[in-house]
Amino acid sequence: MSNSQENTRISMQIEELACELQKAIEQKDVGLVTRIVQKIPPGELPHILWQLGLEDQTRLMELIDSDEAAELLLELPESQAADVLEAMDGVRAAAILDQMPSNEQADLLGAVAAERSEEFLKQMMPGEAEDARRLLQYRPDTAGGLMITEYLAYEESLAVDDVIQDLRENADKYRKYDVLYIYTIDSDGLLRGVLRVRDLLLSAPHQNLVALEVCNPISVHVDTPVDELDHLFRKHRFFGLPVVDSSGRLVGMVRRQDVEEAMAERASRSFLKLLGIAGGEEIRSMALKERIKGRTVWLSINLVLDLIAASVIPLFENTIAQVLAIVFFLPIISDMGGNTGSQSLGVTLRELAAGLIGPRDAWRVARIELPLGVVNGLVVGILLAAVGWIWQGNVFLGAVVGTALALNTVLAAVLGAVMPLALSRVGIDPALASGPILTTITDLSGFVLILGGAQLALPWLLM
Amino acid sequence: MSNSQENTRISMQIEELACELQKAIEQKDVGLVTRIVQKIPPGELPHILWQLGLEDQTRLMELIDSDEAAELLLELPESQAADVLEAMDGVRAAAILDQMPSNEQADLLGAVAAERSEEFLKQMMPGEAEDARRLLQYRPDTAGGLMITEYLAYEESLAVDDVIQDLRENADKYRKYDVLYIYTIDSDGLLRGVLRVRDLLLSAPHQNLVALEVCNPISVHVDTPVDELDHLFRKHRFFGLPVVDSSGRLVGMVRRQDVEEAMAERASRSFLKLLGIAGGEEIRSMALKERIKGRTVWLSINLVLDLIAASVIPLFENTIAQVLAIVFFLPIISDMGGNTGSQSLGVTLRELAAGLIGPRDAWRVARIELPLGVVNGLVVGILLAAVGWIWQGNVFLGAVVGTALALNTVLAAVLGAVMPLALSRVGIDPALASGPILTTITDLSGFVLILGGAQLALPWLLM
Repeated sequence: MSNSQENTRISMQIEELACELQKAIEQKDVGLVTRIVQKIPPGELPHILWQLGLEDQTRLMELIDSDEAAELLLELPESQAADVLEAMDGVRAAAILDQMPSNEQADLLGAVAAERSEEFLKQMMPGEAEDARRLLQYRPDTAGGLMITEYLAYEESLAVDDVIQDLRENADKYRKYDVLYIYTIDSDGLLRGVLRVRDLLLSAPHQNLVALEVCNPISVHVDTPVDELDHLFRKHRFFGLPVVDSSGRLVGMVRRQDVEEAMAERASRSFLKLLGIAGGEEIRSMALKERIKGRTVWLSINLVLDLIAASVIPLFENTIAQVLAIVFFLPIISDMGGNTGSQSLGVTLRELAAGLIGPRDAWRVARIELPLGVVNGLVVGILLAAVGWIWQGNVFLGAVVGTALALNTVLAAVLGAVMPLALSRVGIDPALASGPILTTITDLSGFVLILGGAQLALPWLLM
Repeated sequence: MSNSQENTRISMQIEELACELQKAIEQKDVGLVTRIVQKIPPGELPHILWQLGLEDQTRLMELIDSDEAAELLLELPESQAADVLEAMDGVRAAAILDQMPSNEQADLLGAVAAERSEEFLKQMMPGEAEDARRLLQYRPDTAGGLMITEYLAYEESLAVDDVIQDLRENADKYRKYDVLYIYTIDSDGLLRGVLRVRDLLLSAPHQNLVALEVCNPISVHVDTPVDELDHLFRKHRFFGLPVVDSSGRLVGMVRRQDVEEAMAERASRSFLKLLGIAGGEEIRSMALKERIKGRTVWLSINLVLDLIAASVIPLFENTIAQVLAIVFFLPIISDMGGNTGSQSLGVTLRELAAGLIGPRDAWRVARIELPLGVVNGLVVGILLAAVGWIWQGNVFLGAVVGTALALNTVLAAVLGAVMPLALSRVGIDPALASGPILTTITDLSGFVLILGGAQLALPWLLM
């Protein structure tokens, strides 16, 4: 079977499953719903849930076991999962939240409306609610906001045997823990050291943890921002780092996977901002009102910027009236400025994200961008000059439009390269603002170059 | 100290460190170079290396210990690390590669020129080279290409004690392993089960692994694509999955972090493609020739598409000559079509990436996009109509340009929403092609709407 036939077959099955699931939900057939959910291949769940719509998603979560509902919700983007929780009965939502790891609890509680969040917390199991409340204090993009409270810590005076006994006795509770490391603390709860499970395996049962631990392990403060965490995980091979408060007390563990997820989410947010979604988050299942907020204002601001840029055009009305052919080139130079600028902008944003450059490198970046801008300017400039010459049979028209495009391309390339750096130096979000500012400038310069050139060359253009 | 002062202070220190490092490299002072490298804060390394430039990067890697050089190289984006290796002496490059995990070896060897890759492999340690050659057979975005060969596997007939003894004896070799799971195999090397290190800890020394293992564990085939792996890791809490070949033999372990990294890299590639970098990869340290390849062709194709779209403008020359004010609105309707389209495009690409929608959902997506398109069309249409009316004192001109912008905004929103889905159904890379095709269509429709409208309303526009 060919690959595309295979894909079609799978898509058909997914459609059928979604349809069956919808019917089963409507019939409130718990057994059938559970069987269908288990039949869905991994990765297709978000797709099928998306097709259900908010109302049926909520009914589904109310029908199945709360631990399964928790798993399903975690497959959805956070804003969507929060919408489902908000649409649910408080007791039921709390039961589902109880089944989630502490950091996911806090993220979702932070994403729902404040009064619902308080209601859920009151209905949750006291221990879970307490952990969640503690995590809710921290900003989501810090070690405190990303950490989990499911970690193992023992006083360093204990022996290997004591730990093994505890692991045995609480096997049920620890089943859901990622036991990666065992942290050691002193009697005040201050972090002292770390050891790996295999270190326990290789040592005598009566040995004290203090003899096995790696002292003064790398730890992070609750306020450590996510990009610093990302750098630490890139530099070191750890799966998790202990998180301490200002007094050095161990309060959580931040895992590599949660940091990577947060970085991916941040990248996706920048991406959407760059394409004009103001908040950096939109899924079409969101309420229309929310979506308007993200898009319409940005679009209106862009219209105003476009009007400003185009306002130079009427200044050359006289020239335009005499060389009507020049009108053809106005949208072209505007589009090409945007295209060149966005290439260059993209590379800078990528270099920024990879930590290769910082806001102070504008000059260096501009210098490296310049030669490529010149090459591209020459290529597209010569192409457009040829079009202008051949179409109107006037070599001077070709020269005017080609030169204007070439110069504007160089400008757009260099400006696109430095714009995000300049904006972040003055504290403006480069992802959201770079595009509109850049195209306003290159539109303006493009129009002036092409119309100003035509005005200067007017006698030759009318030959 | 304020945050921005703090940032400036750190930036200054980085500049100084980069400068000192450069001098130390020039003086070939190995001790000093090593000391400076160790002083660099985590996360600043890529930035400082970027500032050095290819030649000094290469000299740096040749000066320091090969295991430290391996660590530094892994901090760099793959294409840049490959460039450094290519610029190096073969023996030295091989020694550095020997120090890397098997999957990174294979990635880098796959990224350098084929003849250099062969040269490096010949100089590498036989065991490392063999592993790397084996991994090089697999496509980089499959389980085979992502897996590592550093994992623990024991025959299931062995006892816990045998494993502990092996761990003890080979502690040195295993130090660099992420011992997450212990896989069990039969005498033919077929995967049988999995157990966690803590399971060993909690069991009697004489027990056989067969009694402890979880049988028939979830495993993936070497050809499993990265997005399927991503779904599996989202669904299950594992840190790694065993990889088997077609006969069921255990050949590697794929880790969650490597899958997440591959997904992030793919997202970054789509992002750059969408902004017009053809190959999806550019760093300004790459050779100019490479960078031209990625940008210039795409830019030239866009120019041709722009010319095609603008080619309708001269058809309305007569109308333009009579209503010169209409020229002002041509670049505006073109820009706004692009802006609206890119918002909508961005949301679809994000929903696709999150697995919420598939290529067959075009109709559903269009239907959800429509109301927002209408709202945005009304808002920007009314704004532009007001500008047209007030500026020229002609309500009909306002009506023409406002209606054209409103209709074109609806079209751009819906088209932007379905374009990536339609393109991926016919097997075209949506990230690279969506933008240019979309703006060509919305430019064309925008020009026809605004100029056609003006032509129809000509008598009223000339009042």
